[in-house]
Amino acid sequence: MAKLMEDEVFMAFTTYAAIVILKMLLMAPLTAFYRLTKGAFANEEDVALKPMEERKKLLRTDPDVERVRRCHQNDLENIVPFVLIGLLYALTGPELSAALLHFRVFAGCRIFHTIAYISVLPQPSRGLSWLVGVLVTLSMAYRVLSTVLVL
Amino acid sequence: MAKLMEDEVFMAFTTYAAIVILKMLLMAPLTAFYRLTKGAFANEEDVALKPMEERKKLLRTDPDVERVRRCHQNDLENIVPFVLIGLLYALTGPELSAALLHFRVFAGCRIFHTIAYISVLPQPSRGLSWLVGVLVTLSMAYRVLSTVLVL
Amino acid sequence: MAKLMEDEVFMAFTTYAAIVILKMLLMAPLTAFYRLTKGAFANEEDVALKPMEERKKLLRTDPDVERVRRCHQNDLENIVPFVLIGLLYALTGPELSAALLHFRVFAGCRIFHTIAYISVLPQPSRGLSWLVGVLVTLSMAYRVLSTVLVL
Repeated sequence: MAKLMEDEVFMAFTTYAAIVILKMLLMAPLTAFYRLTKGAFANEEDVALKPMEERKKLLRTDPDVERVRRCHQNDLENIVPFVLIGLLYALTGPELSAALLHFRVFAGCRIFHTIAYISVLPQPSRGLSWLVGVLVTLSMAYRVLSTVLVL
Repeated sequence: MAKLMEDEVFMAFTTYAAIVILKMLLMAPLTAFYRLTKGAFANEEDVALKPMEERKKLLRTDPDVERVRRCHQNDLENIVPFVLIGLLYALTGPELSAALLHFRVFAGCRIFHTIAYISVLPQPSRGLSWLVGVLVTLSMAYRVLSTVLVL
Repeated sequence: MAKLMEDEVFMAFTTYAAIVILKMLLMAPLTAFYRLTKGAFANEEDVALKPMEERKKLLRTDPDVERVRRCHQNDLENIVPFVLIGLLYALTGPELSAALLHFRVFAGCRIFHTIAYISVLPQPSRGLSWLVGVLVTLSMAYRVLSTVLVL
């Protein structure tokens, strides 16, 4: 195994990165589930087995499907930067306790963000969980740039 | 060169990661090609050289352009997680043969997925190639979390 | 700190990766700003505090909000591949001067791309800054695949 994987901070990063990426991957089957139950598809070949007269009606957008897709998009916009910055952050050798705090808060925020988005919890629940997640990424980026800066 | 690049598994990961990212990058010129041939643009400045009366008509969505864009989005949702999880997986020191199997199946699936999406092949060709790609990523994530777990 | 962070090329990569990811993260608050000032929201819970009769009108798309979102999407499609390929590129041990040239041109292009997109600068300013960014990523991918190729 690579030396990196003997470093505790890097192992913690690996764990939480895998968790939030798995959470993000879950959004695709969730979208498929909503598409099937709501009967709202994007591609003609996806409804080819339905009777001809039904097909046109099934090629539509549905508010609940669009909501899951926005949640998935928000994951892409936030989880991918977290993993990329987090990788660099883990390599700067932070304290394990500080690193774990960053990773745990971010993972918790994003899991709660998905629940808030899909269950239509009243604001500011979704907004706050998004904001705290961004602040975690910014805090890691600050540590990265203040440790390593070659312009 | 970094020590990592002397590890055969990491070299294999690097090769396949570069291939699938290049495939994903190809979707942007493909979108541009469809926008030009179908005459469907998103930004007013992109049609500024056309005669005034044509401009409004060119600012529209086209089903074929939207299809390429969905394919590109699906790449973002699947190839980026593969590369991120694959990087961590390669660092856990798997057998070269097992790693190559994962990388080759994923790359094959995603190339076929694009062909199936753009050529409107009948389902379940697109669905299956998507699913197998996700299963490869899940299998690597399972290996990562069962080797390295610091919560 | 990990050995990697003592390598000058990797430190330069880390710096520029952090910069372009921070630039990408900025697109979300910019979208929020446009949503608030233009009064165009996507989720019913986001307008729950407004008077009942106004709510429906606020759940709409706005051309300026959509423009910022397209810019954000373009960042996802280009900055994420740059960071992933750039990481592998930095590990292949290029000359510091060559690496810095790649990173600086890319960062400059993407910052200019955002300005061109949001300020609606006439084409080909946006198109060219996108293209040069892609060429930088392709040049790094070429170096990666010509140094490390395990199929």
